[in-house]
Amino acid sequence: MTNPANTPHSSDSVILLIHCPDRRGLIAAVTEFITKNQGNIIYLDQYVDPIKNIFFMRIEWELNNFLIPREKIGEYFDTLLAQRFNMKWKLYFSQQIPRMAIFVSKLPHCLYDVLSRWKSGEFRVEIPLIISNHQALRPVAEQFGIDFHYFPITKENKREQEEKELHLLEKHRIDFIVLARYMQILTDEFVQVYPNKIINIHHSFLPAFPGARPYHSAYERGVKVIGATSHYVTAELDQGPIIEQDVVRVSHTDTVDDFIRKGRDLEKIVLSRAIWWHLQRKTLVYENKTIVFT
Amino acid sequence: MTNPANTPHSSDSVILLIHCPDRRGLIAAVTEFITKNQGNIIYLDQYVDPIKNIFFMRIEWELNNFLIPREKIGEYFDTLLAQRFNMKWKLYFSQQIPRMAIFVSKLPHCLYDVLSRWKSGEFRVEIPLIISNHQALRPVAEQFGIDFHYFPITKENKREQEEKELHLLEKHRIDFIVLARYMQILTDEFVQVYPNKIINIHHSFLPAFPGARPYHSAYERGVKVIGATSHYVTAELDQGPIIEQDVVRVSHTDTVDDFIRKGRDLEKIVLSRAIWWHLQRKTLVYENKTIVFT
Amino acid sequence: MTNPANTPHSSDSVILLIHCPDRRGLIAAVTEFITKNQGNIIYLDQYVDPIKNIFFMRIEWELNNFLIPREKIGEYFDTLLAQRFNMKWKLYFSQQIPRMAIFVSKLPHCLYDVLSRWKSGEFRVEIPLIISNHQALRPVAEQFGIDFHYFPITKENKREQEEKELHLLEKHRIDFIVLARYMQILTDEFVQVYPNKIINIHHSFLPAFPGARPYHSAYERGVKVIGATSHYVTAELDQGPIIEQDVVRVSHTDTVDDFIRKGRDLEKIVLSRAIWWHLQRKTLVYENKTIVFT
Amino acid sequence: MTNPANTPHSSDSVILLIHCPDRRGLIAAVTEFITKNQGNIIYLDQYVDPIKNIFFMRIEWELNNFLIPREKIGEYFDTLLAQRFNMKWKLYFSQQIPRMAIFVSKLPHCLYDVLSRWKSGEFRVEIPLIISNHQALRPVAEQFGIDFHYFPITKENKREQEEKELHLLEKHRIDFIVLARYMQILTDEFVQVYPNKIINIHHSFLPAFPGARPYHSAYERGVKVIGATSHYVTAELDQGPIIEQDVVRVSHTDTVDDFIRKGRDLEKIVLSRAIWWHLQRKTLVYENKTIVFT
Repeated sequence: MTNPANTPHSSDSVILLIHCPDRRGLIAAVTEFITKNQGNIIYLDQYVDPIKNIFFMRIEWELNNFLIPREKIGEYFDTLLAQRFNMKWKLYFSQQIPRMAIFVSKLPHCLYDVLSRWKSGEFRVEIPLIISNHQALRPVAEQFGIDFHYFPITKENKREQEEKELHLLEKHRIDFIVLARYMQILTDEFVQVYPNKIINIHHSFLPAFPGARPYHSAYERGVKVIGATSHYVTAELDQGPIIEQDVVRVSHTDTVDDFIRKGRDLEKIVLSRAIWWHLQRKTLVYENKTIVFT
Repeated sequence: MTNPANTPHSSDSVILLIHCPDRRGLIAAVTEFITKNQGNIIYLDQYVDPIKNIFFMRIEWELNNFLIPREKIGEYFDTLLAQRFNMKWKLYFSQQIPRMAIFVSKLPHCLYDVLSRWKSGEFRVEIPLIISNHQALRPVAEQFGIDFHYFPITKENKREQEEKELHLLEKHRIDFIVLARYMQILTDEFVQVYPNKIINIHHSFLPAFPGARPYHSAYERGVKVIGATSHYVTAELDQGPIIEQDVVRVSHTDTVDDFIRKGRDLEKIVLSRAIWWHLQRKTLVYENKTIVFT
Repeated sequence: MTNPANTPHSSDSVILLIHCPDRRGLIAAVTEFITKNQGNIIYLDQYVDPIKNIFFMRIEWELNNFLIPREKIGEYFDTLLAQRFNMKWKLYFSQQIPRMAIFVSKLPHCLYDVLSRWKSGEFRVEIPLIISNHQALRPVAEQFGIDFHYFPITKENKREQEEKELHLLEKHRIDFIVLARYMQILTDEFVQVYPNKIINIHHSFLPAFPGARPYHSAYERGVKVIGATSHYVTAELDQGPIIEQDVVRVSHTDTVDDFIRKGRDLEKIVLSRAIWWHLQRKTLVYENKTIVFT
Repeated sequence: MTNPANTPHSSDSVILLIHCPDRRGLIAAVTEFITKNQGNIIYLDQYVDPIKNIFFMRIEWELNNFLIPREKIGEYFDTLLAQRFNMKWKLYFSQQIPRMAIFVSKLPHCLYDVLSRWKSGEFRVEIPLIISNHQALRPVAEQFGIDFHYFPITKENKREQEEKELHLLEKHRIDFIVLARYMQILTDEFVQVYPNKIINIHHSFLPAFPGARPYHSAYERGVKVIGATSHYVTAELDQGPIIEQDVVRVSHTDTVDDFIRKGRDLEKIVLSRAIWWHLQRKTLVYENKTIVFT
């Protein structure tokens, strides 16, 4: 649904995410490209992985007065710079609002949190639909006026249902997916359609306690701190590139229910930070790590 | 070495740690025992494990005016209460200063931190000796005027050296041991001599990254938070009851060396909190968990 | 509104909050009173202020089998113990669901958060009404099916409007009030009707930055951490007893808008923890401090 | 004293800190200057204050192969770039080890911590001397083999003593000063000799609780979190640009002594982070704020 709180982005700018083998002169070359064409740089962050020797950059500049027309920027950049330096790159225009789908099961807290942020204009995003393998959260979707699609999953129908989901996502031109405590494992086939575009929240401090019932395992182990992790989903369960993690203290007096209660707040915060950075185009995945420009 | 900064504890009190099957009337029975004999309770904390149905208590009272003589308190408590309620219990007198040995290898930061706290009177403890499998930290021991004993360890001589260490520890009437980044695994035989009396600091957020080189593994995994864990040593490596954990944020810009540098501060803090609680007799181990009364 | 998610509390218990001058035998006396009458204690926490020499206690016991009938417990406790020990005390029955009013102005994040927690059954509370000096959040109230009352406030009509609000609160038998970013200062007359029963969230780390626009002041000062504080409202602005505080890191790259965005998450968490403790009857105010039993 | 643990810095590089009015092309101009002269950039971070419209940059490049000789870099940069863009700038060579003086009074914890980090090679710095207005910590200085100078301060002799201190600092070519819980206020005259070169640690979360006895004030106010702040010293007490802050939770059960004990750990950590960043030339003061490049 389009959110009336989504005011047009104040500036008309373009964001460029780059990575390539490091070599001398990369920053100078990129900034020259922008400056010579009258672009005003409003954000620049770069990072060199000192082991893999890879250069990463996020740069944003204003488009008013920029000499290269909007629809030609990619082509020019590719020809003049990317091919020469062997760069992988992506362009995002600030005025284009991303489109997000939410997958949920039965737990409402992350869904409420994401929708509240969207509704109050904190997340500049469109949310055309919510998908679930249960009916439980349909009322929440309705409360916020968003279409709710029910796809019950069994071992037998999983691929079939996923195909229908993919069809629906494509139809709504979904850019990325948020698993807001979605309690189903997506198949590799599904994941490959949205590489580094599915954000999950796992209710533990990965790599501790992957898989099911992490709060119960944490309780059994007697930890003094519990955590939550948001990561991009890959083929291997709970092994994808981590976007954000945080923790909260627990003590011997906390029961598993207390772990779950305290964990809910963490999950909400950690997931929402990941979504925020993704929406700002501040994340860049390389191999199994997420660079988060801040 | 005796520390001149160790002034006598202001109050002359006794600490009782108890656990037993939970039943009605335990608190009333214990507090009556103390109150009727003119003891003034200055600390009481209790906790019931709701799953195992075990009652835990830490209670401290002043000894001036207490009607039962100091050396008889244990006997009376055992006869009048412990046997009746099937209690396990321990008594500690505030005026008795615990005796601690420190085991180290080559890294100085935890050793410096522990000795500084001891020297400035923060830790009320005696430290008769430091044991190491390397000579590297002998100058630090000398700087603080503490005996340093060198026991190089090989696969062949391990048990033999441990026997000598145990002999030395016994000779110095050591109450508990701190492994301040000691890079050797103690044998079960050694550990069994000091059950729940050996405090280790592990440089990860257990159960994530047990074993060797946790900072390297954390870096590989691309975590956004690193941690440290102090725990009592048991037969199984890095599996003992956790006393304290804490974490610090890292980002993609942090190298393994940065992880190590940030981790050092964590290790110092987390280890020192564990030692502090142990010295205050605020820890009580039951099965594989540590209750930390606060 | 009554929340269908509010299942009856699992146990039928009673909570007693006490404070009185400290003296020997208080714990024994209270626990005896309960135990002798067949009450099973399921929570006990006590604390002695070592400077003011005041004893504080929170004790909870199950009512099944308790020999004193529910409606007589207060009377008996008062006669047998409270008068003797000069105790101030309060009794709360676990099966009685508290009734809360929410005051808001224009910012929706805390309101959304509180209502989501209520709606999903995390807060066991009834919310008969929302009061506001603006119309802005009426749609949120409607989204959650709660009555919304609009009381615009001017310098001239303040006392008059407050009188109407008080009338409404009384009519709905409101137990306590949450100011979820309510941007009006309540008069002393209003506050005195709900002593230690109005919970505010202030968007700074009090006592730093009291009053208006704390994020702007924090930005001006160049702090590296911002905070939020929830406290009971007293006559003096932002001076009431603190229930909870927490912080989040900021850096020179964060603008005032970033402070506000990061602060929103803090405000939600800190306010909700305060409400949670208040609902659990775990807070006890003495002079200008809040004891939070945990 | 020179520390044998100070190995030569692995790379031979130069660090440039710049600020100037923002305009198009600054990054391109600076990176071109370096790249065209065969410098390999190993660090670049820049930031534009969006309100004051000031551009800030920290850039570091390797000197091997750099075409401009070391001693001419400043001159060339000034002529070719700084004058044109109205830049303020500073150059630091990685191979030049900074010289630090420590001022202390009676509390040893920060001193121990700083000296331990220096001794174990964590801080790459020379510490020619420690200055104190008390004799209490002379043994700590001696333990680490550093000259200790005693300057007792009275109202009458303050300026005179400071003059002697300044003479001593100059004689030892001190680059910057760390006040490790130095309990004297320096005069403006003294401070002006070391602008943004005196690092203080204040034991509160500024601007809360400036001045004396902040832990006592925090206890009185009933806060739930205490903090520590390191900042550059300016003429106005506790008002200088903040470098780092951090906090730790406290509860009603913590006494003032517990605040002090918990605070000590904070003070050590917060001060050492500030020193670390200062040593890395990662701090840049503008008006009353500290930019900390990370």
